[in-house]
Formats: sequence, C-alpha cells, structure tokens
Amino acid sequence: MTLKMDADALTAFLAEAFPQVAADFTVVAAEPDLLRVRLDVAERHLRPGGTVSGPSMFALADVAIYLAILARIGPEALSVTTNCSIDFMRKPAAGVPLVAEARLLKLGRVLAVGDVLIFSEGVAAPVARASLTYSIPPARPQAAR
Amino acid sequence: MTLKMDADALTAFLAEAFPQVAADFTVVAAEPDLLRVRLDVAERHLRPGGTVSGPSMFALADVAIYLAILARIGPEALSVTTNCSIDFMRKPAAGVPLVAEARLLKLGRVLAVGDVLIFSEGVAAPVARASLTYSIPPARPQAAR
Amino acid sequence: MTLKMDADALTAFLAEAFPQVAADFTVVAAEPDLLRVRLDVAERHLRPGGTVSGPSMFALADVAIYLAILARIGPEALSVTTNCSIDFMRKPAAGVPLVAEARLLKLGRVLAVGDVLIFSEGVAAPVARASLTYSIPPARPQAAR
Amino acid sequence: MTLKMDADALTAFLAEAFPQVAADFTVVAAEPDLLRVRLDVAERHLRPGGTVSGPSMFALADVAIYLAILARIGPEALSVTTNCSIDFMRKPAAGVPLVAEARLLKLGRVLAVGDVLIFSEGVAAPVARASLTYSIPPARPQAAR
Repeated sequence: MTLKMDADALTAFLAEAFPQVAADFTVVAAEPDLLRVRLDVAERHLRPGGTVSGPSMFALADVAIYLAILARIGPEALSVTTNCSIDFMRKPAAGVPLVAEARLLKLGRVLAVGDVLIFSEGVAAPVARASLTYSIPPARPQAAR
Repeated sequence: MTLKMDADALTAFLAEAFPQVAADFTVVAAEPDLLRVRLDVAERHLRPGGTVSGPSMFALADVAIYLAILARIGPEALSVTTNCSIDFMRKPAAGVPLVAEARLLKLGRVLAVGDVLIFSEGVAAPVARASLTYSIPPARPQAAR
Repeated sequence: MTLKMDADALTAFLAEAFPQVAADFTVVAAEPDLLRVRLDVAERHLRPGGTVSGPSMFALADVAIYLAILARIGPEALSVTTNCSIDFMRKPAAGVPLVAEARLLKLGRVLAVGDVLIFSEGVAAPVARASLTYSIPPARPQAAR
Repeated sequence: MTLKMDADALTAFLAEAFPQVAADFTVVAAEPDLLRVRLDVAERHLRPGGTVSGPSMFALADVAIYLAILARIGPEALSVTTNCSIDFMRKPAAGVPLVAEARLLKLGRVLAVGDVLIFSEGVAAPVARASLTYSIPPARPQAAR
C-alpha cells in the first residue's frame, strides 16, 4: 500500500483547507499504518491548573484520523466525523507537546474507522485514547478514487 | 430533589473557574432533571462552509454535563471527564446558536453519567448526541458534601 | 409520521428472521417516537450473584434499535450494527424483567442512530444506557422503500 | 512488570467463577502487554447467514479486558464493566474462530481502560474493535493488593 499524501503534503493541505486550526498541528510522520500528529500546546488549549482541555485533545484525535484518511485517499476535504468515543486516562505532563498516533482500522466505501493514542511527548503511558468513525462522501464523477 | 445551584449561580461559577471558555456558554435553564446550555456560535467555532466544528460541539456537551453535576453537588471544580461518546448526526443550521439539553442518568459516589442532545435553536431534529462519564473526586475532609 | 410495522408485526418478524433469540424478547409498544422491548430474564442471561450479564443487556439494546428502525422502514432484515457505546450504571433488580426504551434520533439514507435506556421493570433509575449506529444497505432495485 | 496469573491460571479461574461462559473462551496467551483470547464459534453464536452475533463479539471483548485486568491484579472476581464502545467493521470469516487481542492502557486505583481488536483467526484485517472501562472495587481490608 502506498500513500497518496506524505507528511508535508498533509500539512500543506491542512493550512489551506483549515486555516483556523492548522497552526496548532504538525504532521510528524505519515506511514502506511501510522500517522503521527503533534499539538504544540499553547495557552488557549489549557484549563486552570495547566491541564490540556478535553476539546483540545478531541480536536487532536479528530484531525489525526482525518489526515490518516487523506493520506490514503488524497486531498478530498469532505469526509466528516460521525462518531467519536474518547477516554481521558491521565493528566498530560506540563509544558510538553501532545503527540497523537493514529491507525486506520477500516477504510471502506462509505465509512472509515480508526484508533488514536495521545501521549505527552516523551512519556510512555498514554494520556487519552479515542476511536473515530468518518463518513466518506461518494466520489465526484470526475474523480476516479 | 433540590438543586444546590441555579442557572445564575452556574453561569457565575463558570465565569470565575473557567474564564477562557465562559464567554461561549450561557446556562439557559437548570431544573432537577434537565440542564440547558446555549453556545452563541462565533467565527472561532466554525469550519469552512460555516459548520460548527466538532471540538466546539464536544466542548458544549462536556460543559453541559459538568454543569448538571455542579447543579446537584455544588461548586466543586474538580470533577473530570473520563469518557465521551459523541455522534454527529446533522449539519447545524447556519447563523443560529446551539442548545444542549443535558440529563444526568447517574450521580454516584465516584462516577456520574449523563446524556446530551444538541440542537440548532428552533430546529426539532438534533444535530448531535453525546454521553459522558465524569469522575468525582472524594470530598475534601473539610467539605461535607 | 406513521409506522410501517406495529408491535405484533415486529414480534412476528423477529420470530421468523431471528429464531435463536426471538424467545428472549417481546415488543411491548411501538410508537412513532418510542419503542419498548422486554427481556424476560432467564438463567442463561445471568452471571454469578444473579446479575444480568453485559452481553444480554447489549443484545437487548441492539435489538431495540433494530426494531425501531424496522418499524419505520419495514421488514428488511439487512441493517447491521456498526457502533455501540453502552454504559452500565446500576445492578439490575433481581427477579424482574428488563425493559428497553429506544428512540431513533436519526434515520438517514445510509446511517441510523438511536438511544436506549434499560430499566428493571418498575424501577425508575435506569440500569444502563446505550447509543447505537446502524448501517442501512441501499434499497434493492425491486423494492421501493 | 510481572503478571500475577498466566494463561492457564486465567482459564482455570474463568471455569470456576463463570461456568456459564467459560466453555466459549480459551486464553491463548497472557503477556505483560497483550492478552489473547479465542472464541470457538458455535451454532449458538451465529446469526442467520452465518455471521457471529454482535452480543457474542461484545462478550469476547468484555472477557478479554476482564482477564487482562485479572492477569495484573490477581483472581478478584469483582471488577465490573462500566462502559464499552465497540465498532463492528467487517463480517467475520465463516467457520473459523475469533481471536481477541486486549491491551490495558490504564490500570488505576478505581478504573481500568483497555483496547481490544477482534480478528477472524488467520485474517489480517480486524472484524471489530472495542474499548472498555472497568470499575475496580476497593481492596478488601484483608487483601493487600
């Protein structure tokens, strides 16, 4: 299996299609069976006490699976999240980025399913885990997928 | 069953404990079996095409259950989300607020579980549904709960 | 909105299409916005100590949403569960049936989403809650839906 | 990290504590970071068409995490499932056992969280994925854990 987009292409796509959030995320690695995305934690992602907020971790998991799908099908912006189940397991370490590791478990004609583990960079025990389902719209006639 | 905090007290607590996000949310109603929170959708909550972002809807569901717990146990900031399962079902209507309706299904000694439906204001079909689990820390010795 | 199958038609369909499990379940009520199914708890559903097993409650939630979909689209056996998130909240009462209340939140072209609450008959606090997604196969050409 | 129970000890515990279901499951491997359980598919696990039923796959995922916890904390029967989110991704292959691979992501004082992948034996693409949360009761006074 080869990927249609590498880490640089994914980062560039994100910057163009989602300018509001692209600054938060960096695609660290895009391999056939693993996509790794980093969130450089800033003040706006924090809760009192310095914890990264739940919505920020949700956003990281969500974008990681989205990019893992794009890496496989190419730059089609229209897939949408239909379900996410996320478990928050540990308080993130203070002052370090979060790194999401995403694995696609299914890439079907209409649904894709993937798992994500989120780590504080350099710490072995995961901070959160998530599974997400994306709905993939029918290919536009002019685009053979 | 009586509530320990009403809509105004919850809104005031949010402003003090979570100043980063309090401006987004308004507690519309706090009743024993239903808490209603409104998200006044702003540019920062949107995705290209005008859809409210998944993380914004996650944040709304999360805060709604958090406040439903506080309404029952009083202003203790320490409960944390341990799990959320959310389904995104329809595109929100453009240009109207989102309203979350939260119901606590269990308020145990260590875990609380609740369901949330999210609507575009004035539209009958829900935009999203979510269920959340919160972990409630042991009461501090000086605070009889 | 009218239903295409009532409680008796649903029970008869279950007996024909799923003879292995039909004896466990009785459709108590089928209304446009609520379907109620009863599980008459037998020895085979129990765990040591007399608790109803998790798989039995999962099966009850699953069949309840399945039947709620059939009530709306008619007797097509091919819908399949794609996701279930279930929370077990309280120990069921001993010696009484379980009753599931299912509500369809979305019935789309390819996906249906519903919520279920499970109660011990006659007890107000729910034993479990679940949300399920079903994938609905394309209509067969000869069958106008 | 060493385990308190190996594959044989776990299988024996299951036979004693859960005689109703023990015959379905065989612990294939118990390693510090992976527990593997096999379900020998029988007629009672099937749906029309020969598919393994959803409740049977739920039961397999559930027992796999339960045993992964026991392998770490020893033979204490009292942990209970509080949440399961499961995705059914592919139809199982006909006539072969299912194998669950369970990984504990967190084993805390009161909650444990784990991920499960379910495969048709000998097939690379997973049939289902699940994440589960267990509540671990306080240690009994006489039992140092």
